[in-house]
Amino acid sequence: MDSVASHSYEVHLEALAQAALQQYIAKSSYSKIFLMVDENTKKYCLPIFEEKIGVQIDQILEIQSGEANKNITTCVKVWDALSKNDGDRKSLLINLGGGVLTDLGGFVASTFQRGIDFINIPTTLLAMVDASIGGKTGVDLGPLKNQIGVINQPKMVLIFPEFLKTLEPRQRTSGYAEMLKHGLIRDAVYWNSLRNTNDYGDAACVQKSISIKNDIVMQDPTEKGVRKILNFGHTLGHAIESYCLESPQRKTLLHGEAIAIGMILEAYLSHELKGLPRLSLEEIKDTFLKHFERVDFDGHDIDSILKLLRYDKKNSHGNINFVLLQAIGEAVIDVKVPDNLLLKAFAYYKE
Amino acid sequence: MDSVASHSYEVHLEALAQAALQQYIAKSSYSKIFLMVDENTKKYCLPIFEEKIGVQIDQILEIQSGEANKNITTCVKVWDALSKNDGDRKSLLINLGGGVLTDLGGFVASTFQRGIDFINIPTTLLAMVDASIGGKTGVDLGPLKNQIGVINQPKMVLIFPEFLKTLEPRQRTSGYAEMLKHGLIRDAVYWNSLRNTNDYGDAACVQKSISIKNDIVMQDPTEKGVRKILNFGHTLGHAIESYCLESPQRKTLLHGEAIAIGMILEAYLSHELKGLPRLSLEEIKDTFLKHFERVDFDGHDIDSILKLLRYDKKNSHGNINFVLLQAIGEAVIDVKVPDNLLLKAFAYYKE
Repeated sequence: MDSVASHSYEVHLEALAQAALQQYIAKSSYSKIFLMVDENTKKYCLPIFEEKIGVQIDQILEIQSGEANKNITTCVKVWDALSKNDGDRKSLLINLGGGVLTDLGGFVASTFQRGIDFINIPTTLLAMVDASIGGKTGVDLGPLKNQIGVINQPKMVLIFPEFLKTLEPRQRTSGYAEMLKHGLIRDAVYWNSLRNTNDYGDAACVQKSISIKNDIVMQDPTEKGVRKILNFGHTLGHAIESYCLESPQRKTLLHGEAIAIGMILEAYLSHELKGLPRLSLEEIKDTFLKHFERVDFDGHDIDSILKLLRYDKKNSHGNINFVLLQAIGEAVIDVKVPDNLLLKAFAYYKE
Repeated sequence: MDSVASHSYEVHLEALAQAALQQYIAKSSYSKIFLMVDENTKKYCLPIFEEKIGVQIDQILEIQSGEANKNITTCVKVWDALSKNDGDRKSLLINLGGGVLTDLGGFVASTFQRGIDFINIPTTLLAMVDASIGGKTGVDLGPLKNQIGVINQPKMVLIFPEFLKTLEPRQRTSGYAEMLKHGLIRDAVYWNSLRNTNDYGDAACVQKSISIKNDIVMQDPTEKGVRKILNFGHTLGHAIESYCLESPQRKTLLHGEAIAIGMILEAYLSHELKGLPRLSLEEIKDTFLKHFERVDFDGHDIDSILKLLRYDKKNSHGNINFVLLQAIGEAVIDVKVPDNLLLKAFAYYKE
């Protein structure tokens, strides 16, 4: 399997990843190598890491898994642990986990002593195809997702599809949503093949998604323009995810589950405002509802979700900017949406 | 007074600063302009800012002054306040205060929604000649100074020597220590003129110090090499500052007061290890003791200070690297110092 080049870091898959990491560590002169895990990756992924990768780790740091722990309190614990274990500017942090862990680990590394090196080894499909690529790091501030963070690239991203075997089906499906998004915003052929396969976690699909995301990020690392298309489904998806996380009567959604809903809603907006054909809209809705159970939002839920939109970081000057589709494979950025259409989008999702 | 060019930001003094800020704001399209103050700069500097500078501020944010508040808890309060007042990616944060405020404000801005623009208006001599120049931002983690932060340049640094009139003498003297350091590490002529003047806060001296620091930072923005010379006096100075801050029986020292002691100690090490002439060593000690009262450290104090050294962020691989002087105006980096010499340096300081 080939490696994917990027501006300032490399993505390696499978056997190449193992060799690349070993060579990199051998030629570096890190003072200490820290490995961060959560209770799940410690149990299911660390043994694979130790057997397959065989890099000497000086200290393992453990955090609690889950979006609810992706916050500054957890960062303080990790900064403290790095300090107490003699972490210094020449230390390396390897993040072994899903998107919560790689986002938080990247932020902790980027800010510890004004920045130490880090490497991401994503263990979920979502983190492989999305979170660990592109240099966005950060944590949540109360209900506001990724409100605090920096853009900073890891030294390497290493992909071992073997870790996917450790995942529950629900976690795998969550990653599938982001992969389908890559097709929707950039590649209609990929969308078609992906929505008709059951084997979306194989190395070829993972690599295709990484390539699409990486191409977009390389064109616009700091998200001034084209990179925004990666936010398709996320403007409403983030608000839905935040709302369900905070709301006691709603089941917490995985990121992919929330943006799957967001993509149906924003596909409706695309049809209304940007001419996305009706047939494409139906195809998108059918595809996502086949894999993601419909959530029954009531009026109060929808009101609360729309209130959260105001705080979303993609907003500017109080306006809400959406990424919409003109066609499958063709996205447009910075589209303003009238309020009444948002309610109609939720009605369409319920139908 | 001239402006000082830099890689990615500009430093403007006096009348030029006022014009530069007004022009910059006029041609920008910020969604909201936030101004951060503490209780002191709100009282003494904000009226001058409003009268002199006349830029429309949308929201004033107030933090508590002092090193003890330069921490993540204060950052969370400011991040929350930015969020609640509709701060977004196109907001601007203007930091009006001393080094604690500009360091913290720079970090908060660099990490809010993965980075918004900020401008520093330092109000203390120390912040004018040191903290606000060079892009180092950050906060303390417990007793560990600047343990958490990033390197990120402000859009502008604006210097109004008029603010110095609002300072207590002790605060002015603290800034004087950093100015003397600029002479010691880079410019023997400046050192000589500066140690013989009582008017070190005038615009010409401030500008000379800014130029020296800026030249060094431009050569090495990320502190891989020459920039380290700015840490002369800081390896021991930081440990002394942290110790006195945490220790109930010791008076808290201002930053300049702590590094003045650090510079005497490290001048002694320079004499022992790098051939700094005895006469130069005496001249350095006499100059600092003329302005900075000697602190009477006992054996327990010294033990505790040396323990804190281990945690200092300039250390690597457990070794303690010092910046020392070969001569006044000539610094060398990455010098290892045997433990017994550290005790002798404290003995020399006591003599």
